[in-house]
Amino acid sequence: MRERDIIANYFVPLASAEPGAFALRDDAAVLDIPNGQQLVLTTDSVIEGVHVLPHASPQQFVQKLIRRNLSDLAAMGATPWRYLLNLCAPRETADGWFAAFAQTLKAEQQQFGMVLAGGDTTLGGTHVHLTLTALGLTDGPALTRRGARAGDTIFVSGTIGDAALGLTMLQDDADANGPWVERYHRPQPRLALGKALRGNATSAMDCSDGLWLDLQRLCDASGVGARVELEKVPISDATRQLLDAAPDADSRSALWHMLVTGGDDYELIFTAPAAQAQALQEMARFTGTPITAIGQITEELHLRYCDARGEHAFSMQSGWEY
Amino acid sequence: MRERDIIANYFVPLASAEPGAFALRDDAAVLDIPNGQQLVLTTDSVIEGVHVLPHASPQQFVQKLIRRNLSDLAAMGATPWRYLLNLCAPRETADGWFAAFAQTLKAEQQQFGMVLAGGDTTLGGTHVHLTLTALGLTDGPALTRRGARAGDTIFVSGTIGDAALGLTMLQDDADANGPWVERYHRPQPRLALGKALRGNATSAMDCSDGLWLDLQRLCDASGVGARVELEKVPISDATRQLLDAAPDADSRSALWHMLVTGGDDYELIFTAPAAQAQALQEMARFTGTPITAIGQITEELHLRYCDARGEHAFSMQSGWEY
Repeated sequence: MRERDIIANYFVPLASAEPGAFALRDDAAVLDIPNGQQLVLTTDSVIEGVHVLPHASPQQFVQKLIRRNLSDLAAMGATPWRYLLNLCAPRETADGWFAAFAQTLKAEQQQFGMVLAGGDTTLGGTHVHLTLTALGLTDGPALTRRGARAGDTIFVSGTIGDAALGLTMLQDDADANGPWVERYHRPQPRLALGKALRGNATSAMDCSDGLWLDLQRLCDASGVGARVELEKVPISDATRQLLDAAPDADSRSALWHMLVTGGDDYELIFTAPAAQAQALQEMARFTGTPITAIGQITEELHLRYCDARGEHAFSMQSGWEY
Repeated sequence: MRERDIIANYFVPLASAEPGAFALRDDAAVLDIPNGQQLVLTTDSVIEGVHVLPHASPQQFVQKLIRRNLSDLAAMGATPWRYLLNLCAPRETADGWFAAFAQTLKAEQQQFGMVLAGGDTTLGGTHVHLTLTALGLTDGPALTRRGARAGDTIFVSGTIGDAALGLTMLQDDADANGPWVERYHRPQPRLALGKALRGNATSAMDCSDGLWLDLQRLCDASGVGARVELEKVPISDATRQLLDAAPDADSRSALWHMLVTGGDDYELIFTAPAAQAQALQEMARFTGTPITAIGQITEELHLRYCDARGEHAFSMQSGWEY
């Protein structure tokens, strides 16, 4: 199949709800930003062998691509709106691959309320290389990483470290499955929570490269430090069982290190005055997203965590830097 | 150098004029679309070995990337405004490569009035893979491919076929240079002309995949046909000399075929009522862009051209399909 057949067969139907996409048949899209809205723009690539495993399924490509970008919109408190897709796939890619890719894309754009507005398609090269540009809208000030203040409570949504464990399992066995692997393949962008945090959190970002590294970035942007209680970092029941089964303190400690530096969590890290903790918990419950207080923002720029062994500096060596 | 150093050293300075880019330190950019403007969005990738030659210089990468996208904005009559950049380069890429890349990017964004608003950077893989998303603005209806009507005159800007000749020379000798090669490396997006055509042309598109193929697309979008006089297709003096030096009619015909199907012209193809030809010529002169009438839009859907040998159907076999 040639580029234009792929576009006509698979991508044009995904653009039908946006007249300004001109059925993907013009040089550019022309979009009317709804009155009173700001545009929130993010772009991330998903490259075979880097962000997904070699020979990932079309479903895995699409879900990682869409949700990785939407997690960035969630972190700004924006609502997904439109997207552009750049697809490069080897010339020998089967038609069925594109069909499955587009089918998943359709399900994802319906779930998240987005419409395809443009992109480009190239056949060539030896692996799949995707870029998605997500356009979101916000009708008030977006969340940023910049407002954390000393004394603020640090929260994270969901659980941390499952996806990193999933990736380890997949590296051992490409056919591994189960909840950890599912977390790696299929992030859950925290869009409802992000929207609810606008005007309530002092800072927010998405946690994609490991809790330690991303919290460091949030602190850098806000000009503050942090102190985290490791035992409060929320982990799934399955991960808890794994920790409990660890033979000694050293291996438990190594596992914790992996959980907080492994990445691919796509949870939100955010801060708010301690007095608002209760209200935030209510709000989070309303959006169906568990949140957990894990520590405090400090005036000293150091980033430290404490566990049963005492207080330690963050170790970032294993944080991912995409 | 790591991703974050590349971003901090080379890309952050390019984003300083857009406060909503948050110095590339947040999850997404937040942009205020100026009042009364529509957003015009296009995205195109430049892949080493596909859209530029293997081991292209950083300057060549940047110029092709920026100008390829701006040519799409020109075709809509939009004014460049902001852009996002996705860069993936092999881990062993030298620091100097990134420095030269960013220096050219800076010159280009100054020349075209754009500001970097976001993107992502990945080190990995075996070749350079770039994606640029260009945001343009328009304060009135954009140009589209859809409005060509039977009887309209067909125009093209500049000259056709030089870049295709340049690519052929580069394929023979990677160090080739001269005007043809320059045209291949450094397209000139026809932004001023595109803007002037708004409200005056009935349809427009950029010619990037060969005149025949792109004119076919414009006709498809408008539901019309075309008849082109081959001898009127504007070619450069250098190309004219080459044609004159062709030993026989067959080799002249083969050369013509290459000129109109080779691609990489990044000129504008557009249509307007014949009565407006004179006014359009004046306007084009005012923007410093030569334009040439090459034929007529027809009601019959056929696309035909005539030369000294008679009338022929377009042959699209060699058109590029990116």
